[in-house]
Amino acid sequence: MEFQYYLPVNLVFGKGKSLFIGEKAAALGKKAMIVTGGSSTKRSGLLGKTGEQLRDKNIPYVIFDKVTPNPLTTTVLEGAAIAQAEGCDVVIALGGGSSIDAAKGIAFQAVNGDDINDYIFGRKSSDKALPIIAVPTTCGTGSEGNGFAVMTNPESKDKKSLRCSAIVPACSIIDPLLMATMPKDILASVGFDALCHNIDGYISSIAQPMTDILALEGARLAINCLKKVYANPTDMEGWEGLCLASTLGGMVINTAGVTALHGMEHPVSGLKDVVHGRGLAALAPAVFEESIKGDPKKFTILSRLLGGRDENDFMDKINELIHELKLNTTLGDMGIKNDDVDWLAENCMKVSAASIANHPVVFSVEDLKRIYRKAI
Amino acid sequence: MEFQYYLPVNLVFGKGKSLFIGEKAAALGKKAMIVTGGSSTKRSGLLGKTGEQLRDKNIPYVIFDKVTPNPLTTTVLEGAAIAQAEGCDVVIALGGGSSIDAAKGIAFQAVNGDDINDYIFGRKSSDKALPIIAVPTTCGTGSEGNGFAVMTNPESKDKKSLRCSAIVPACSIIDPLLMATMPKDILASVGFDALCHNIDGYISSIAQPMTDILALEGARLAINCLKKVYANPTDMEGWEGLCLASTLGGMVINTAGVTALHGMEHPVSGLKDVVHGRGLAALAPAVFEESIKGDPKKFTILSRLLGGRDENDFMDKINELIHELKLNTTLGDMGIKNDDVDWLAENCMKVSAASIANHPVVFSVEDLKRIYRKAI
Repeated sequence: MEFQYYLPVNLVFGKGKSLFIGEKAAALGKKAMIVTGGSSTKRSGLLGKTGEQLRDKNIPYVIFDKVTPNPLTTTVLEGAAIAQAEGCDVVIALGGGSSIDAAKGIAFQAVNGDDINDYIFGRKSSDKALPIIAVPTTCGTGSEGNGFAVMTNPESKDKKSLRCSAIVPACSIIDPLLMATMPKDILASVGFDALCHNIDGYISSIAQPMTDILALEGARLAINCLKKVYANPTDMEGWEGLCLASTLGGMVINTAGVTALHGMEHPVSGLKDVVHGRGLAALAPAVFEESIKGDPKKFTILSRLLGGRDENDFMDKINELIHELKLNTTLGDMGIKNDDVDWLAENCMKVSAASIANHPVVFSVEDLKRIYRKAI
Repeated sequence: MEFQYYLPVNLVFGKGKSLFIGEKAAALGKKAMIVTGGSSTKRSGLLGKTGEQLRDKNIPYVIFDKVTPNPLTTTVLEGAAIAQAEGCDVVIALGGGSSIDAAKGIAFQAVNGDDINDYIFGRKSSDKALPIIAVPTTCGTGSEGNGFAVMTNPESKDKKSLRCSAIVPACSIIDPLLMATMPKDILASVGFDALCHNIDGYISSIAQPMTDILALEGARLAINCLKKVYANPTDMEGWEGLCLASTLGGMVINTAGVTALHGMEHPVSGLKDVVHGRGLAALAPAVFEESIKGDPKKFTILSRLLGGRDENDFMDKINELIHELKLNTTLGDMGIKNDDVDWLAENCMKVSAASIANHPVVFSVEDLKRIYRKAI
């Protein structure tokens, strides 16, 4: 047994905790940038309420609301330039994983300058960023629990994460009340993402005791609570469990990394801007089918969490869940064609080399192509 | 579900990892103070090897080797004065919980000055301390996993902890090879302490999902691995599991606190300088017997980890373990007399008020007296 573990998350979890955004911001800085998407936090009132809290605490702020799903490196550069020009010293992310990841990128870029692609591809490194307050409104990416920020370079289509401890949020406010209005199809895809983070990290070849402990509880909660909440969106205990599962998943992958499922999905949503959770669901059956032999013991434990007996009925059980959540779909449904397969497999080896290396079965480029084709 | 969780531990775990003390020290400071006890790290060679590593990295150092079991606030003040005078900017703890706690106190006092008792009793606070490298040589206190430093004031006999995030070690190097030479009686008492941290934190009224996850794995590992290693001291996998259980226990109590068992033991070892783990074992039967009714569900889960069926055979199972480890002893064996009971109960309410408040059953001073008497 040998491991290294460092993850300085600061979790503030509970119904109504989003009322403390202003207080936390005042403790961390003097001028805030709120990073969010174009509409949902306006519609829900969260953006307005956050502004009120900041005004109450005499914290001036600017709003940067240009974040799109699968956020772009260019959007991050634009936001960072504004943060610098405005002298913001704390960044507040309101929204799903896209907003949190963009906020992390902005907080990093505002301090470090240079080309963020150099940091994403590990050609440069830094341990500095503005402090970040993450307030997730979806329970899937777990970005509030780690130091990852996934961005897509619109020129190269590379969807890859910036990874460093400096962008672990100084405070993550996880308020299950912010999630409970999510439409069912969004819930299914983000919840499946949360489950897959825990599975990906659990079967990773660089998993270790600390991540296994968190991943098993994260997977258990994701399975039980996602089903509950999907069936009954008023089940508040279910929402709480699913939110925690999502944060745990984010924490797990910070250290254990993701594996082939996430690694193979990134090129898909990089190329076609698909909903990440649906991309995962389309790939999952083909990826898992070829993965069980790599760690039958861990797949047995996962199968049992899904209600199965051992590794041999894991596929039945995961497919049942995918159907129950109406996530049964194909890459073809998302516009992926056989002609795209070569690019996907090669881009996967480029942007997700570490995830493929962490997988319990060694996949060659040819293996990846075969799996992509199966999923079309 | 509502919780706050922040614990920035940095764990470097594995056989032989103590070879990296010098490298870690060089990353954190320019001049080191090594804090250790009078003999065991000299005999084992760890002190000498640490000096060699520091010389290799051109880090000058001073050795402060005056730490005793149940370290004193006065020893901490003495060490801090030397650290200041010598301009040390990183503190390396080599030893059991006493050395780590003393090192934490020194790292804190060297920066903050003033009377450390004010910080221990919460009359003042600070978030600053010198960076600490903790290298435990026993697997019990879990001090490497938290921001607690227990010290005894020799005048008042108050044994109470300084608690703050600043004294969470910047790096904890947990090398199971450093433990494996421990005599059997020491192993039994420190291992029992590790188990009790996990139990105390698990049944705490301020326990929460993050601490429950860690506590259950910590308790499971402590029970299984302590038995294994006690029976066969060459079982390296057992040592690894017990070391991890100890660190997990330390992490758990950082957030969930301890409860009546630990709270009641502190006055005992404050008064009579007894071995902490033996004090716990003497008190455990009487404390647990009156605690099960406070949380039968959690005691059922603990009982099952011990090989039992439900909360009704928890006492049988914990007593079996205490006998197996030859820890069956009484407070009377340690020199505690009926005449001491009033002071013990009153001091417990003074130094361990929070631990008593966290207990699943509300104990009055009269309850504490009755339990102390039973344990004599």
